[in-house]
Amino acid sequence: MFRPIKNTKVYEQVIIQIKNMISKGILKKGDKLPSERELVDKLGISRTSIREALRALEIIGLVESRQGEGNFIRDNFENSLFEPLSVMFMLQKSSTLEIHQVRVMIETETASLAAKNITDKDIEVLQEYIDKLENSNDEVDRSIADKNFHYKIAECSGNFLINNILRSVSSLMDAFIVNARMVIVNEAEQREELVIQHRNILQALVNRDSEAAVTAMREHLECIKRHLILMDNIYS
Amino acid sequence: MFRPIKNTKVYEQVIIQIKNMISKGILKKGDKLPSERELVDKLGISRTSIREALRALEIIGLVESRQGEGNFIRDNFENSLFEPLSVMFMLQKSSTLEIHQVRVMIETETASLAAKNITDKDIEVLQEYIDKLENSNDEVDRSIADKNFHYKIAECSGNFLINNILRSVSSLMDAFIVNARMVIVNEAEQREELVIQHRNILQALVNRDSEAAVTAMREHLECIKRHLILMDNIYS
Repeated sequence: MFRPIKNTKVYEQVIIQIKNMISKGILKKGDKLPSERELVDKLGISRTSIREALRALEIIGLVESRQGEGNFIRDNFENSLFEPLSVMFMLQKSSTLEIHQVRVMIETETASLAAKNITDKDIEVLQEYIDKLENSNDEVDRSIADKNFHYKIAECSGNFLINNILRSVSSLMDAFIVNARMVIVNEAEQREELVIQHRNILQALVNRDSEAAVTAMREHLECIKRHLILMDNIYS
Repeated sequence: MFRPIKNTKVYEQVIIQIKNMISKGILKKGDKLPSERELVDKLGISRTSIREALRALEIIGLVESRQGEGNFIRDNFENSLFEPLSVMFMLQKSSTLEIHQVRVMIETETASLAAKNITDKDIEVLQEYIDKLENSNDEVDRSIADKNFHYKIAECSGNFLINNILRSVSSLMDAFIVNARMVIVNEAEQREELVIQHRNILQALVNRDSEAAVTAMREHLECIKRHLILMDNIYS
């Protein structure tokens, strides 16, 4: 299972071994890791290096440290503190257009998959978001309803990986898109168009029509893109 | 810039502050971070907590520690030790089909974007990979040529984010797909079909025809999907 380590960057080796055990299925979600003392014995390295590695895995959101109980592979990865992809993308200074392209890539696929997997209960939830988008008097509420609508579709895709890729870039999306969303969602003349676009997406999902869902999502995102370009021109 | 920290999980706060400074553009790629001593003074927390945070960021691949020089925001994020998404996805025990859907999502988009951005030099490189796929007598060489062909197209997309998402799930893809690739690429009767599919993709890119590139990529991935399903049935 664990092998003694001979290397200079020892904490890296701890992580590589844990990663390998995960990829081989030896370590699974919720599993308890050996105690720090056991790891010291098994790997033949200092307690400091073990702690560094465990702390890093905790920060990434892979390992959970429970007071008095020990270290565990986390059961769920939602709301992890750190989204490495988002931060790296922020450093990259990507253009609004590039970020928008990522959104198109992910959300046309979630729409396509959701059309195959959506339940009547999901449809009710999506309908409620559209109602809020149409009728709420609070602009923040409307923006949140819009956002929830899109995340719900990703959830309905039934693909954990794709849903997670969307979430792992969501703080990036939010940072760039939230302003655009506020502007577009709340311009009176745009609101009706937006509600219609969301209804079209929902109707395609109700019909379990993947192709129509992709088309409706693409049209909606094309409309947003036109606004982003407009805003970019204004603000740059 | 930095603010003193009042919290129990202090290392988390260090990371949140660094993340915020990145998102605001105060910290940029290649920038030197304040020294450990300065961070201790500015944040009012222990050197141990500072080190834990920095070490975690180093492990994630965001910070680079240079002997005798200090800590820097990394200049490039390729070949980072740790791919959090891949590891989390491995833990999720995703199905082959789910992973294949991620691949379809990413690679139809990279094909579409590459058609708009590809240069004549890129086309030459892609042609060389196809020649190797067709003519090499070594099955490992052929598999590598196949893989390189797909990564090169992602690079040609001109979208750093999408290229990076593909790379951040690549060890997951490789773990699941490498066997399939070996089987498909090296079955004599399949090889010719595969070469034709790759030629079709390249031809669409040469014509700068996004729609045709998406169609050709989709046909190629559909063919791979049929083999994956076949293999799944055999091995499960």
